[in-house]
Amino acid sequence: MDGLRFDGRKRNQLRDIRFSRNYISTCPGSVLVEMGRTRVLCTATVEDRVPPHVKGTGKGWVTAEYAMLPRSSAQRVVRERSTLKTGGRTHEIQRLIGRSLRAVTDLKALGEVSVIVDCDVIEADGGTRTASINGAFVALVDALAADGRWQGGRLPVKDWLAAVSCGIVAGMTVVDLAYAEDSMADVDMNMVMTGSGGIVELQGTAEGEPFTKEGYDLMIDMAEEAVGKIVKEQRTALGEELSGRIGAI
Amino acid sequence: MDGLRFDGRKRNQLRDIRFSRNYISTCPGSVLVEMGRTRVLCTATVEDRVPPHVKGTGKGWVTAEYAMLPRSSAQRVVRERSTLKTGGRTHEIQRLIGRSLRAVTDLKALGEVSVIVDCDVIEADGGTRTASINGAFVALVDALAADGRWQGGRLPVKDWLAAVSCGIVAGMTVVDLAYAEDSMADVDMNMVMTGSGGIVELQGTAEGEPFTKEGYDLMIDMAEEAVGKIVKEQRTALGEELSGRIGAI
Amino acid sequence: MDGLRFDGRKRNQLRDIRFSRNYISTCPGSVLVEMGRTRVLCTATVEDRVPPHVKGTGKGWVTAEYAMLPRSSAQRVVRERSTLKTGGRTHEIQRLIGRSLRAVTDLKALGEVSVIVDCDVIEADGGTRTASINGAFVALVDALAADGRWQGGRLPVKDWLAAVSCGIVAGMTVVDLAYAEDSMADVDMNMVMTGSGGIVELQGTAEGEPFTKEGYDLMIDMAEEAVGKIVKEQRTALGEELSGRIGAI
Amino acid sequence: MDGLRFDGRKRNQLRDIRFSRNYISTCPGSVLVEMGRTRVLCTATVEDRVPPHVKGTGKGWVTAEYAMLPRSSAQRVVRERSTLKTGGRTHEIQRLIGRSLRAVTDLKALGEVSVIVDCDVIEADGGTRTASINGAFVALVDALAADGRWQGGRLPVKDWLAAVSCGIVAGMTVVDLAYAEDSMADVDMNMVMTGSGGIVELQGTAEGEPFTKEGYDLMIDMAEEAVGKIVKEQRTALGEELSGRIGAI
Amino acid sequence: MDGLRFDGRKRNQLRDIRFSRNYISTCPGSVLVEMGRTRVLCTATVEDRVPPHVKGTGKGWVTAEYAMLPRSSAQRVVRERSTLKTGGRTHEIQRLIGRSLRAVTDLKALGEVSVIVDCDVIEADGGTRTASINGAFVALVDALAADGRWQGGRLPVKDWLAAVSCGIVAGMTVVDLAYAEDSMADVDMNMVMTGSGGIVELQGTAEGEPFTKEGYDLMIDMAEEAVGKIVKEQRTALGEELSGRIGAI
Amino acid sequence: MDGLRFDGRKRNQLRDIRFSRNYISTCPGSVLVEMGRTRVLCTATVEDRVPPHVKGTGKGWVTAEYAMLPRSSAQRVVRERSTLKTGGRTHEIQRLIGRSLRAVTDLKALGEVSVIVDCDVIEADGGTRTASINGAFVALVDALAADGRWQGGRLPVKDWLAAVSCGIVAGMTVVDLAYAEDSMADVDMNMVMTGSGGIVELQGTAEGEPFTKEGYDLMIDMAEEAVGKIVKEQRTALGEELSGRIGAI
Repeated sequence: MDGLRFDGRKRNQLRDIRFSRNYISTCPGSVLVEMGRTRVLCTATVEDRVPPHVKGTGKGWVTAEYAMLPRSSAQRVVRERSTLKTGGRTHEIQRLIGRSLRAVTDLKALGEVSVIVDCDVIEADGGTRTASINGAFVALVDALAADGRWQGGRLPVKDWLAAVSCGIVAGMTVVDLAYAEDSMADVDMNMVMTGSGGIVELQGTAEGEPFTKEGYDLMIDMAEEAVGKIVKEQRTALGEELSGRIGAI
Repeated sequence: MDGLRFDGRKRNQLRDIRFSRNYISTCPGSVLVEMGRTRVLCTATVEDRVPPHVKGTGKGWVTAEYAMLPRSSAQRVVRERSTLKTGGRTHEIQRLIGRSLRAVTDLKALGEVSVIVDCDVIEADGGTRTASINGAFVALVDALAADGRWQGGRLPVKDWLAAVSCGIVAGMTVVDLAYAEDSMADVDMNMVMTGSGGIVELQGTAEGEPFTKEGYDLMIDMAEEAVGKIVKEQRTALGEELSGRIGAI
Repeated sequence: MDGLRFDGRKRNQLRDIRFSRNYISTCPGSVLVEMGRTRVLCTATVEDRVPPHVKGTGKGWVTAEYAMLPRSSAQRVVRERSTLKTGGRTHEIQRLIGRSLRAVTDLKALGEVSVIVDCDVIEADGGTRTASINGAFVALVDALAADGRWQGGRLPVKDWLAAVSCGIVAGMTVVDLAYAEDSMADVDMNMVMTGSGGIVELQGTAEGEPFTKEGYDLMIDMAEEAVGKIVKEQRTALGEELSGRIGAI
Repeated sequence: MDGLRFDGRKRNQLRDIRFSRNYISTCPGSVLVEMGRTRVLCTATVEDRVPPHVKGTGKGWVTAEYAMLPRSSAQRVVRERSTLKTGGRTHEIQRLIGRSLRAVTDLKALGEVSVIVDCDVIEADGGTRTASINGAFVALVDALAADGRWQGGRLPVKDWLAAVSCGIVAGMTVVDLAYAEDSMADVDMNMVMTGSGGIVELQGTAEGEPFTKEGYDLMIDMAEEAVGKIVKEQRTALGEELSGRIGAI
Repeated sequence: MDGLRFDGRKRNQLRDIRFSRNYISTCPGSVLVEMGRTRVLCTATVEDRVPPHVKGTGKGWVTAEYAMLPRSSAQRVVRERSTLKTGGRTHEIQRLIGRSLRAVTDLKALGEVSVIVDCDVIEADGGTRTASINGAFVALVDALAADGRWQGGRLPVKDWLAAVSCGIVAGMTVVDLAYAEDSMADVDMNMVMTGSGGIVELQGTAEGEPFTKEGYDLMIDMAEEAVGKIVKEQRTALGEELSGRIGAI
Repeated sequence: MDGLRFDGRKRNQLRDIRFSRNYISTCPGSVLVEMGRTRVLCTATVEDRVPPHVKGTGKGWVTAEYAMLPRSSAQRVVRERSTLKTGGRTHEIQRLIGRSLRAVTDLKALGEVSVIVDCDVIEADGGTRTASINGAFVALVDALAADGRWQGGRLPVKDWLAAVSCGIVAGMTVVDLAYAEDSMADVDMNMVMTGSGGIVELQGTAEGEPFTKEGYDLMIDMAEEAVGKIVKEQRTALGEELSGRIGAI
């Protein structure tokens, strides 16, 4: 119960997290997020058109695409264009990222505009989907701030957003699993929360034995604390001025 | 807080559930499951080969495919073969069904055999993924019982499996949402549990406002009760003899 | 020459035929047709747009899609979306169904509207394409009757339409082949006729030895008689009122 | 009833037919067939492998592919590779050609070998599928003769094979329709027969009004006569020696 | 150094070249080009629409498609529609043809019109891409001349265009390689030039050893001479009147 | 003639070039190459299998894949998996990279092994294909050095390899074009050379006016000098020990 994790972290300890903004010179909303060795390049693009199901509603839309570079993983990942199919895992992750971002975006204030966030994994050491959400949020804020529409004023972003993984590994409940832990976890949970503590998405899967409600409660508490820390890092990365333009009216 | 639901059900009340076994004469594991007007045809096929990642391990595999017939929905659904893509939602659901079934299958006792379960939605009135899991479990048991390998003895099925949706609709926490409720829910949760009460999968999404841990706990309790009722129906449908062959050794 | 068929039928005897209308509650033109154990779900959808080649002509269009559910056949059928191709057989059948329906539809009276008929095979025991046509016709009539455009008046349907298979099996000319007969037939013919006795489509294939004009004539006569019986069943299923609204002006 | 056709032909008169053998220097079974202005390049390739469903049976297989060059038609035809789909019409035609060729091939004598016949339309002036069959037969014979396996002896070809179209155009029953006739025909029939008069394939479609059994009989008689003439041309093209090696043992 | 080539040609000698214009009766810009046994059917189609990136500029566009018929090669070539992919080599060649033709087309004088040139290889004996360019140019001129827009006057074609291959084979620098030479060449170069001697495209690849600048210069000189001869043949094929309508204003 | 370029460079001056080796911790052959603002991540993977056409020859193979991240360009680039096609430009570039690398690899010494080099463009400011080749060469060397097969000894790399672009921009012949120059160039040439001065690939395209042999010679000389400088940078990046293991025996 008191042992350290394989990399010396405590059970509730996150890996080092870093946001490098303006990573690509021609893309204002481009962020390289790092959580330990997991690195994801997140870029947000504002486009002046919306998908058909939104057209005419006066509202906007936020969507995401996710991909792994071929050598982001120790085993080379075959490009999806070669298989002529987007895999199920890819679909699941990009739908999760998109839904999560929409939950904190004020789609009405956004207007008939869409934001597409691309999350491309440079190196994958566990937690790529949660790292993607963390970086995507920062990229989204940067892209909206750079757009002429909301200059200086409140951005169409209602709340902060961060995500973290939890799991039970060798009987120990831990947060922010690295790949070495992820691959031997009995339970794998991903939690997406807002800065004010609301739950946006919550997905738990028993990889081996089914888990109990108690185990589940413990994970939620741990995730809640971790999300708070990540939001703090995002706030530091974005700086005071930009941070002040986030939040419901 | 005390009002009835749009169709007269109480908040914790399931729709009528029915399992029609041997629905297709040439397929021993074929079940039409009905939950209210939602109808899904579930068929299980045992095949003598396994996917590459299992080959040589002595273990088996269970996988699922999910599709909606074009007029299962009020709005005609375009066939996925026409779009040359399997959509993200389809992928998500069939991966969920597959993972859930594997959680209660004794893959070692199954041996190097794979079972593919097809869930084809005849009519969709909400809850097609949970209905699919409920029917798929019965079809899986029937297909394994019909196969020569385990005749008379214990089946390679460790526990019962059932799923139900929960949600918060107009401020009311309810179970087994019909389409009319689903489309206006603030929170949508799907829970897959074993007969002995373990949680296998748990997916909650805030459609509008983020939800709280308390709201979440209430849904879990409600789902737990509902799953118990569904397992009882599965047991009745399968009959005493077959039911007796289910469960860990 | 006088022997009964493998299932006790006489040479010119059809299998039991049944039309279950309104099979899906949210789809007015939905019919489950059964010919013996062959079961096909036929649904007709009226849409307010027409394909490019009809646009601006004032006329409408009728088209069909055909698919087999994975376990409709004893051997599991791989879904076509998985292969990224619609097979040749599928194409052939859905083109046949579409052409046949158009032959009895008054496309001018239909107006710039298109009807898409989906034929999904639940169980395949021979004759799925002819059963599809028989059920599709009933679904088409139901869908048109439910549409506001022709309420009460004559429907844009010029004549009745039915189809049947014929074949030479072990030297015996028979009608409405079941799978057991189909798989050993020397000649396989499909005939689509109108209620007033006109030939709409006629396709004969020698599976083994080429056949003679005489053998061919015998099959045509037998098919003609059978089609008459099927039209009678369609008329009974649709009822007197609806039946009275069919036929050229 | 006595009028000539738009191009001066009598009702039962074929267009000029020509077979240019050895059309491609590196392909022994390559024939350019011309029926009037319709020109199809037919090439037959013998390969030392068979499709899975034939493997191990000791028998061979014959299959066909059909395509139109982009400007074979007055209106440029989009290449099927661009659409990522093989169209329904293409499928129908290549299945017809394949089935027809198999009907006169002695698959047992062929042995575990497959022949693939490619029919590429250079110019399309009606009747491309029947011209393809006529040319494909000659190419098949040439390819088999060039192969070492049957040198000098009887070829694994049981009978001659030819095809022709018939139709009712402006009330007149005619044979071998040119495009100008085809596009205004009320009935369109394609008939494939053997040299000894057996019917191999027969497909009739009412484009406008359904047709009667009498009209149908007239077309069959006309087609029979025409096929006889085409076989005579094939015999002349192949020459005495090769012709003598065709026919059942 | 003084030896003849495998087919008796001198090092700087082209194979016989022939242009058969009006090869397809319904397509005015249809040319069969032959360079030795290499035969390519080139057809040009003028269409009244332009791709999006040109729309509204007042300019036109020229594009090309290239394909090999299955038996153009000694080894049967699988159709690209079967693989659901257009191969890299195909892409490379059709982009080369398109760019080359655009280099001599006066896109402004063309107006908002596009020309699509299809190059389909009937028989491939080396140099199909250069033969395609040579034939495509003639087809382009014919198609533009047949179009009403420029009747009698100067065509929107600024200069003549021809292409040829060079290479170093067994130490000998040669022009217009046949397949037997191409397959053993150390260096393979393709050069596209205008009638007035400008270089439009130049692509050299070392198949084995890298080559030197000197070797390269020799090839360029040889190609230049050969292109001059080909342009002369094109001029003869097009005749005096049409030739006089080519060239910058 | 004497003016500086838009970014202050001289006509024959390269942009700053930088190689960051071991860019991904789990991939030994991973290099981020930067030429000015153009950044490409190159990773090389050694695999124990070879493509069919090499199998059994005792030789190895080197191949490449190229892709642009969506926001590598100022205008978001749609992912190729979304279009279900690999574009022509992508094909052309990855074929060029593969051929170039093979030209300096000793495929015999490599043995029946294949190396796949992935070039993923992070930011594109002109010259991504030449930067890819420069980085790919370093990644290839690193991957081979990390592989157990050649430890300590001579690597199966016969010569150094580098590439650079040249062009004529506003009448000025320049080297290593940035995007701003590339987009207005009259001529665009890419040259791939070995360390010992041999030409491996050479591709020149006239974007506007055709170019002359003289202009062409000038570009070649300039490219030659530039390639020399790049090889020097590669040598510095790889260090003395590794550099000493490169070169023909």
